[in-house]
Amino acid sequence: MSTDLEIARAATLEPIGAIAARAGIPDTALEPYGKYKAKIGLDFLRSQAAKPRGKLVLVTGINPTAAGEGKTTTTIGLGDALNAIGTRAMICLREPSLGPCFGVKGGATGGGRAQVGPMEDINLHFTGDFHAITSANNLLSAMLDNHLYWGNELGLDPRRVSWRRSMDMNDRNLRNLVLGLGGASQGVPREDGFDITVASEVMAIFCLASDLADLQARLGRIIVGQTRDGRSITARDLKADGAMAALLRDALAPNLVQTLEGSPALVHGGPFANIAHGCNSVMATALGLSLADVVVTEAGFGADLGAEKFLDIKCRSAGLTPDLAVVVATCRALKMHGGVAKSALGGEDVAAIERGVVNLVRHVENMRKFGLPVVVALNKFTTDTPAEIDAVRHAMARIGAEAFLCTHWGDGAAGAADLARAVQRLLSEGHARFRPLYPAEMPLADKLGVIAREIYHAAEVQIPPAAAARLKKFEEMGFGHVPVCVAKTQYSFSADPTRLGAPEGHVLPVREVRLSAGAGFVVAICGDVMTMPGLPRRPAAETIGLDAEGRIDGLF
Amino acid sequence: MSTDLEIARAATLEPIGAIAARAGIPDTALEPYGKYKAKIGLDFLRSQAAKPRGKLVLVTGINPTAAGEGKTTTTIGLGDALNAIGTRAMICLREPSLGPCFGVKGGATGGGRAQVGPMEDINLHFTGDFHAITSANNLLSAMLDNHLYWGNELGLDPRRVSWRRSMDMNDRNLRNLVLGLGGASQGVPREDGFDITVASEVMAIFCLASDLADLQARLGRIIVGQTRDGRSITARDLKADGAMAALLRDALAPNLVQTLEGSPALVHGGPFANIAHGCNSVMATALGLSLADVVVTEAGFGADLGAEKFLDIKCRSAGLTPDLAVVVATCRALKMHGGVAKSALGGEDVAAIERGVVNLVRHVENMRKFGLPVVVALNKFTTDTPAEIDAVRHAMARIGAEAFLCTHWGDGAAGAADLARAVQRLLSEGHARFRPLYPAEMPLADKLGVIAREIYHAAEVQIPPAAAARLKKFEEMGFGHVPVCVAKTQYSFSADPTRLGAPEGHVLPVREVRLSAGAGFVVAICGDVMTMPGLPRRPAAETIGLDAEGRIDGLF
Repeated sequence: MSTDLEIARAATLEPIGAIAARAGIPDTALEPYGKYKAKIGLDFLRSQAAKPRGKLVLVTGINPTAAGEGKTTTTIGLGDALNAIGTRAMICLREPSLGPCFGVKGGATGGGRAQVGPMEDINLHFTGDFHAITSANNLLSAMLDNHLYWGNELGLDPRRVSWRRSMDMNDRNLRNLVLGLGGASQGVPREDGFDITVASEVMAIFCLASDLADLQARLGRIIVGQTRDGRSITARDLKADGAMAALLRDALAPNLVQTLEGSPALVHGGPFANIAHGCNSVMATALGLSLADVVVTEAGFGADLGAEKFLDIKCRSAGLTPDLAVVVATCRALKMHGGVAKSALGGEDVAAIERGVVNLVRHVENMRKFGLPVVVALNKFTTDTPAEIDAVRHAMARIGAEAFLCTHWGDGAAGAADLARAVQRLLSEGHARFRPLYPAEMPLADKLGVIAREIYHAAEVQIPPAAAARLKKFEEMGFGHVPVCVAKTQYSFSADPTRLGAPEGHVLPVREVRLSAGAGFVVAICGDVMTMPGLPRRPAAETIGLDAEGRIDGLF
Repeated sequence: MSTDLEIARAATLEPIGAIAARAGIPDTALEPYGKYKAKIGLDFLRSQAAKPRGKLVLVTGINPTAAGEGKTTTTIGLGDALNAIGTRAMICLREPSLGPCFGVKGGATGGGRAQVGPMEDINLHFTGDFHAITSANNLLSAMLDNHLYWGNELGLDPRRVSWRRSMDMNDRNLRNLVLGLGGASQGVPREDGFDITVASEVMAIFCLASDLADLQARLGRIIVGQTRDGRSITARDLKADGAMAALLRDALAPNLVQTLEGSPALVHGGPFANIAHGCNSVMATALGLSLADVVVTEAGFGADLGAEKFLDIKCRSAGLTPDLAVVVATCRALKMHGGVAKSALGGEDVAAIERGVVNLVRHVENMRKFGLPVVVALNKFTTDTPAEIDAVRHAMARIGAEAFLCTHWGDGAAGAADLARAVQRLLSEGHARFRPLYPAEMPLADKLGVIAREIYHAAEVQIPPAAAARLKKFEEMGFGHVPVCVAKTQYSFSADPTRLGAPEGHVLPVREVRLSAGAGFVVAICGDVMTMPGLPRRPAAETIGLDAEGRIDGLF
């Protein structure tokens, strides 16, 4: 069997202008970045604003396990399959972060015959968007510390600075540091730290901005810290918003690439799915909807975190009305949800499927709470048995849902043809009645309660008094109307990563709440959330290198 | 009078393919980055290796003053003028750093009618080269700290780590910090700091590498620190060289842009001119020489630092044989060298010129020590009087040199036509007999002595015992053959920035010596050298922003 890398290298990509032309993007709208990548000019996006919109399909999944589910490959495979059966589809994905490439994970451009390319470029610097975001984040930090250095006219309390620096790297040694050392001419000593770029609020803002003006307005609203008397200081107060917007201007134009089967894909933005909303930019999704009959897009983690945020944060903020949710599962992962260890996944175990499928059932039912039709994509592994697959199908039939076997990893578009036909049919039936889970005017603590009860099936939300007081303060500051972004483990409906399946009656323990005033949401941190990953003992970086032809080895 | 920004915006750039075609670069060799920038593929560079080489002209200057000299505009103006009179010329420049753009300086793409464009792009992210260099630098840091974290098999002493992180930002608060705080799972506490990206050894390596293999070999030789028993640990020991080379692969291809008059310009790399060698990449210069009759390039600071390093470090390392030096001066700056304060530059002061011209005289004579013919470009300001200009010309005539008045800032190519004809004539006469100042086999301390005596006219070099011992150690380690890169103030031949003109008999006080084993030179630090600038009280960033059409204001 070929590796992902071999398949990617064997593929012949088309010139990006040809992909653009098929997608309805004229040559004049393209800013090429090499032969196979292009940014789509903001002028063209503006010209598309009044166009009729295509349908929006969200690909989400069960709670992830070590067995792997294949959400990105399903997004790509479904897009390819829709194009193959005559529906003009556009794929919208997040950009990979450099950090994980050098850690454990390898690249993030799909796999098998369901990949976007050029793989090496997309996984490394791509069109430089993340570097621009890092620069904008750190320019704000530099201007903040420079303000402290030159006399601190605004009265910012150096102990109450919440804005952190960022780097697109897995680097645990940057998590907590004391900077500004060395004496009076060297800066102002204070505690700080770096988050990985995808965890920066600038990334979340970048992905929620609807145009350049909205981008700059959101950047200006970023709260960097407080004065001693509790007044918030913003990026606008520091006069940093204009230069930050200038740094981000070119990056805000969506990136066009292609799948190995020649479908157009917009790969743009990539916020964390815990402390941010975990999906690609609004700019890209809106552009896709103006061009294609169907946009297939993806949200991070399982549907409890990723889809909920896609629907309650991104779609609400951008006025998007999704039409269908695809929930991805595998027999292997469902067996793990049924209590089987990864090392014991080899043999047939129908009983484990029957125990574990409750995870899938709940995600399907959750998606319906948003008014969305749901279809299940069952990514097939060679070890799956007919009885195991039937067990999933029966469980789905009991709740009136259909599961389709998918083999796009090995077969490309043909492997997702059944799924694509079902998607086509469901879209044409038009049963979607999208509604967010809670209204904007609901108090922040209540919003958290609704998510915990309706989506996580928790019995209770524990909000410590200090956090509750902060939520009240956010409401007094005029941020009561924003959605809540829950940061918790992605492995369980609960806050305990070991409780697989479909736990009930648990407690959602809120540790801390933060206001992302620029992005426009409140983050509720439940349990430990890592905003700067570390490298493993043997990082992938040790084996990444150039081969004799200058190609990059080791990225997968 | 129009501002630089107005002139840049009023200019119509040609599609980069047209510029490339005129320069002899086929379309297939281009990796476009938007419509007006392109990288030139490394395959094409390899195919050019055996081509006859054009002539190499170095533009350098007197010691810089607050009055401004115009070295970059002269490089551009001369290139334009050579093309206008029928000599195929290519311009090679450094890429600007983001840091100064947000500080005091504004952009670095020339000025007036002698600019390269697109100005906004080149001054901000351009083609992402500096971001790639920052990433490679910081990946090495992350792998180093990760090595310490996971048990430190190599025995690196955390107190003896010399490798620092980098950021393309003016940010004094990052100069000195303690990182790895927060407990056993958060890293290994130690002192560190950030240098601006242009000061990273990765930047110097990037600019001296002759191809990808040489790049990776040099990266591998970087010394990151020592063990307790004094053994050096390299990037290769940390297995970081492959991934660093992968991050830099695309960046290593030179960037093609154009002047406002349509001359091709390669803008690539930009190392500091104090702790590194201060000129654009070897890759770009070599490509230019394979394509053009004449390459006009620039070195940082005055000729004592910039040209000396260009000749003794870059040309020696790359086997380049320069043919001519152009020394740039202005009457205003020479008056400052003659003791006039900037605020008193208004009126005619021939006596001040006669006192200050010694600075220019010495630089011209210094360039001849390298076997190079020299011509002087006198950048004209409207306040210059005929008597002042005559004073410069007479001083030059006394040493057998010619000075040409240049007005390319206001007049474009026509303003440098006399200079260009003189350059053309001198090149055709072929009097250049380039020789480095000292042989590679000379001991390191002696090399320092030769530079100090011959170029700075110092009476003595003071090397503290610890530094002398380190120089010996570098020789024992096998680095005795490398050139010496002096880091001292650019404002004076001496190490005292207030001693303008042509000081003699001074002492060159070496404070510290460092080995840049990957770049291939020893840095001798004389006086204070800032490797991470700070922002001023009112940084330029405060006034940078987007206008209603999404154009960037405030970059000049």
